[in-house]
Amino acid sequence: MGMHQYLSGLNELEMISRAPGYFKYQPHSVAAHSWKVTQAAQFLGDLEELNGNEVNWRMVYEKALNHDISERFIGDIRTPVKYASPVLREMLADVEDNLSDNFIEAEIPVELQAIYKRRLHEGKDDTLEGRILSVADKIDLLYEAYEELQKGNPERVFVEIYRESLKTIHEFRDMPSVAYFIREVLPELLNEQFPGSDRLKKIYIDMYMPTNK
Amino acid sequence: MGMHQYLSGLNELEMISRAPGYFKYQPHSVAAHSWKVTQAAQFLGDLEELNGNEVNWRMVYEKALNHDISERFIGDIRTPVKYASPVLREMLADVEDNLSDNFIEAEIPVELQAIYKRRLHEGKDDTLEGRILSVADKIDLLYEAYEELQKGNPERVFVEIYRESLKTIHEFRDMPSVAYFIREVLPELLNEQFPGSDRLKKIYIDMYMPTNK
Amino acid sequence: MGMHQYLSGLNELEMISRAPGYFKYQPHSVAAHSWKVTQAAQFLGDLEELNGNEVNWRMVYEKALNHDISERFIGDIRTPVKYASPVLREMLADVEDNLSDNFIEAEIPVELQAIYKRRLHEGKDDTLEGRILSVADKIDLLYEAYEELQKGNPERVFVEIYRESLKTIHEFRDMPSVAYFIREVLPELLNEQFPGSDRLKKIYIDMYMPTNK
Amino acid sequence: MGMHQYLSGLNELEMISRAPGYFKYQPHSVAAHSWKVTQAAQFLGDLEELNGNEVNWRMVYEKALNHDISERFIGDIRTPVKYASPVLREMLADVEDNLSDNFIEAEIPVELQAIYKRRLHEGKDDTLEGRILSVADKIDLLYEAYEELQKGNPERVFVEIYRESLKTIHEFRDMPSVAYFIREVLPELLNEQFPGSDRLKKIYIDMYMPTNK
Amino acid sequence: MGMHQYLSGLNELEMISRAPGYFKYQPHSVAAHSWKVTQAAQFLGDLEELNGNEVNWRMVYEKALNHDISERFIGDIRTPVKYASPVLREMLADVEDNLSDNFIEAEIPVELQAIYKRRLHEGKDDTLEGRILSVADKIDLLYEAYEELQKGNPERVFVEIYRESLKTIHEFRDMPSVAYFIREVLPELLNEQFPGSDRLKKIYIDMYMPTNK
Amino acid sequence: MGMHQYLSGLNELEMISRAPGYFKYQPHSVAAHSWKVTQAAQFLGDLEELNGNEVNWRMVYEKALNHDISERFIGDIRTPVKYASPVLREMLADVEDNLSDNFIEAEIPVELQAIYKRRLHEGKDDTLEGRILSVADKIDLLYEAYEELQKGNPERVFVEIYRESLKTIHEFRDMPSVAYFIREVLPELLNEQFPGSDRLKKIYIDMYMPTNK
Repeated sequence: MGMHQYLSGLNELEMISRAPGYFKYQPHSVAAHSWKVTQAAQFLGDLEELNGNEVNWRMVYEKALNHDISERFIGDIRTPVKYASPVLREMLADVEDNLSDNFIEAEIPVELQAIYKRRLHEGKDDTLEGRILSVADKIDLLYEAYEELQKGNPERVFVEIYRESLKTIHEFRDMPSVAYFIREVLPELLNEQFPGSDRLKKIYIDMYMPTNK
Repeated sequence: MGMHQYLSGLNELEMISRAPGYFKYQPHSVAAHSWKVTQAAQFLGDLEELNGNEVNWRMVYEKALNHDISERFIGDIRTPVKYASPVLREMLADVEDNLSDNFIEAEIPVELQAIYKRRLHEGKDDTLEGRILSVADKIDLLYEAYEELQKGNPERVFVEIYRESLKTIHEFRDMPSVAYFIREVLPELLNEQFPGSDRLKKIYIDMYMPTNK
Repeated sequence: MGMHQYLSGLNELEMISRAPGYFKYQPHSVAAHSWKVTQAAQFLGDLEELNGNEVNWRMVYEKALNHDISERFIGDIRTPVKYASPVLREMLADVEDNLSDNFIEAEIPVELQAIYKRRLHEGKDDTLEGRILSVADKIDLLYEAYEELQKGNPERVFVEIYRESLKTIHEFRDMPSVAYFIREVLPELLNEQFPGSDRLKKIYIDMYMPTNK
Repeated sequence: MGMHQYLSGLNELEMISRAPGYFKYQPHSVAAHSWKVTQAAQFLGDLEELNGNEVNWRMVYEKALNHDISERFIGDIRTPVKYASPVLREMLADVEDNLSDNFIEAEIPVELQAIYKRRLHEGKDDTLEGRILSVADKIDLLYEAYEELQKGNPERVFVEIYRESLKTIHEFRDMPSVAYFIREVLPELLNEQFPGSDRLKKIYIDMYMPTNK
Repeated sequence: MGMHQYLSGLNELEMISRAPGYFKYQPHSVAAHSWKVTQAAQFLGDLEELNGNEVNWRMVYEKALNHDISERFIGDIRTPVKYASPVLREMLADVEDNLSDNFIEAEIPVELQAIYKRRLHEGKDDTLEGRILSVADKIDLLYEAYEELQKGNPERVFVEIYRESLKTIHEFRDMPSVAYFIREVLPELLNEQFPGSDRLKKIYIDMYMPTNK
Repeated sequence: MGMHQYLSGLNELEMISRAPGYFKYQPHSVAAHSWKVTQAAQFLGDLEELNGNEVNWRMVYEKALNHDISERFIGDIRTPVKYASPVLREMLADVEDNLSDNFIEAEIPVELQAIYKRRLHEGKDDTLEGRILSVADKIDLLYEAYEELQKGNPERVFVEIYRESLKTIHEFRDMPSVAYFIREVLPELLNEQFPGSDRLKKIYIDMYMPTNK
């Protein structure tokens, strides 16, 4: 038992589409999303370091790279299911942990099991690196939603995702990297003119500059 | 509040792919699957009637047509999650019922709510029509798996699905319609020669004709 | 000769795309369309029953479920061909009937041939259930065209389809189910704002409320 | 009225898929098929010329390039419909001519109408160039079918297409270009080993070398 | 060694997508593009002939049909690479010629090698037919870009392609066929109303009617 | 000028398909490939560390994550072009460097330019981390080719890619992580039975166990 099942199973995450059931002009796989989240995390890590914070680079990359691996075992459970009750949410998290652990015991060589337990469990903790992951995940989600809306996608869910990503990013604005993203990147992203762009700008302004109103 | 949300949401089931995460030569949507299951149910209903059983045709069609509608609310939860524990399974079923009920209250006109409650809840009960649905669902699954294997799909999951569908169909062999399917349709299906066909025939023979060995 | 050819051939209707030759943001298969038409027919049947009309549910479902099955034998003949002359139209209908009958004789077991003759022939007759099918077919066509226009599809054919579906639905407005659809569902559908939505609303108003002008 | 409708309508033939309703590993558009047929015709023209025949190159290219243009007006009518009766066949050919002529009158500038009448009508006449088109069309069909079978396509229709293309090519074997294709190209094509290749070779040998048996 | 490698390799150009890396609502293959360019060249040839110029039809068709064949050997090298320096550009052109020549020597029968050398080398020379190819190539590019912009494609590259195609076509306006295209076809193409159409019209007017301003 | 162009451009690598022009049952994007290479590099890093080598984790991740970013600027240049001559190869590498540098100067904030220069230039140097990247890149290529061959892909290029990846991996067999991959993972990968599997096993045995013959 080497790592063949793990390596060949990565392919599955190329075949799982994000946001199934919604019309998308450009579908995204979980694998490509994971790569882009790791890119965003790398960028946030740079900014933290430039601002004098000590960054554990191994953990920045590791957390981002592996954060959706367990979707292989769980599938795509829609958000309202997950949030139906705190008890259910906890049970689902337990099942996810169990399935990941079973996979690790069955398919990962003993000498690597401890490290894969760390990698396959939830990475969004309160460490700097866990917070970077939380924001990086939302940055890619924000781009995904914005680019659909820019192409004229009428599904309302993408406005909700846009709003919800902006909101989570805003909550982390005390991090220098997030402050930089808000100050330097967001305005460039929101600068395009297209039918509906004013509405998206308004959501951003109401949330980020409430006193401007 | 008319039925617009319900009717436009049918589209979502055209965009949800069955068996996400597995390589497929020919992907199937939940909508197309639902149509094929209703066709299979219609065929089984014919055979029951020809054999003297009274068929409630309205329920045959209604159960088959609507049996996967609630996937819209739930998403694709992988089988190992569902079967992780009896408690979790029950909780997920409750959540599914709640989400369906919420949708019905929010989007279905009052005068139609009772009938949609019936339609959106689990149809695989012990009535003749519920049993027809159980078998029809497996017949389409069997065809989906068999046709992938016939094209050379190396994913092991399709052999498991093939075996599991055959097994469920076999459990209902006391129904005259199922006996007919086993006697007249299965041999035609299994009659093709392709690399790997012998292995599939062996699974069938071991399961259906154990004394032949 | 069991039903294997019939059941495995259902797959073909998953691979026949509606409106070939036109650019579509979201293609639809004949199989998924058939499922959605049956859903729409089910909804219209409910309304007829609520309004005191007797509904033959078996025929509502049967007609809708099977109404495009013979596309397998015929292919997609463009509308201008079909309407080129009354004589040609009749000849094509005869050929369609012949091909369906040949299939039935060759592939359907004798004891089921009569019932499949009924199912594979034109279902849009003057019975209540035939009229329900006529409207249900147009409701799905209306949604297909509207959703393309909402996404910005510049193909003019979708405006024509939109107009033509609205017109046929309007012709059946004496049916209580259709009156309900016009009163409760259409306004919700037409309520969205997008570039071009005013033009679509105007077509609807000119057709449905000519005295309002 | 310039040529805008004609030029922009070419796009439609990129969106019409050949052999709709059959599973294909690699779908082909009518546009790409037309390009490949013109390439095959160019190759056959070379061989005719090398063998001392006078080739009207303008007509070789023109016939091949435009031979499927009228599918835009007609759609994909399945072969059994076309061959249902000689009368129907003739009527469909008339309708095709009428629709092409109507298009030409409505969309082609007067000074070009005569030339487009020639181009949009059936090119497979008894001239050398018409015969080249007949063979070139079958060569591409042969490649399409063979490549599906080589990939393991279990649809029987591709064996029939393979056989039928070989047969038509064989009928033209008195042409030096076709003799060359049979002698130099076919053996290379049929040289691959894959599951089922022996069966395809046998069909070829039985048809092309009956005395060898 | 017959022509099997050449004929079966045409398939590769059906699988090479134009403008890889840019979001497109409707992707185009190099094969379909080549067919449409040949159609555009045929139309330009007609106009030249109508205006009294002698057209070598064989070369019009041959140049257009084969103008992108060597993409098989080269791949898609992005424009900025090609234009990085005149020396590099020349070296790449030499490599392209070498790879084409190697292919011809290895896979084309001796008696056809000379003709394929002509066909696989750059066709955009100063002959009438070479100039027709230059314009026809840009006409298809113009349609490709315009149709993306019409569907709301936000990628800036399509505005650049639109502008650049218009510019090249303008440079050939002394050809009567190009004058005709500018006078009769372009206005029809640019006549559509959609979000952003004014901007495209303005680019055209600024370039084609500078004195109108 | 923040990082918007960089972040939104990651999307381009989701739209660039690997090995364009070859038939593939499952296409792979450069983005998904990059994610899988980083996963393989992470696994090789673990093994190096377990074997007592000091691993610079930041560089393992950084090199793998960013190794194909510059494909955005260059496009897909086919291997025979790159290897046509040492001079050309060097010139192309220079152009790639220049285009990357230009992008960095135009789109990356000054304070991050140095770090992106490191990230966007060739990572396959002689450090442990550079060697891990070289192997990880080939491991994913090996899986891509093997999985196509397992599905019956008749394109010869995949046998060549399979052979070439095996060869490069073999050259690095002195690294403990690569020795582990060869000893524990390869046999599991090559263990499947399918038409053609013996031929692939033979290539492996001839290369890896020449004395066994």
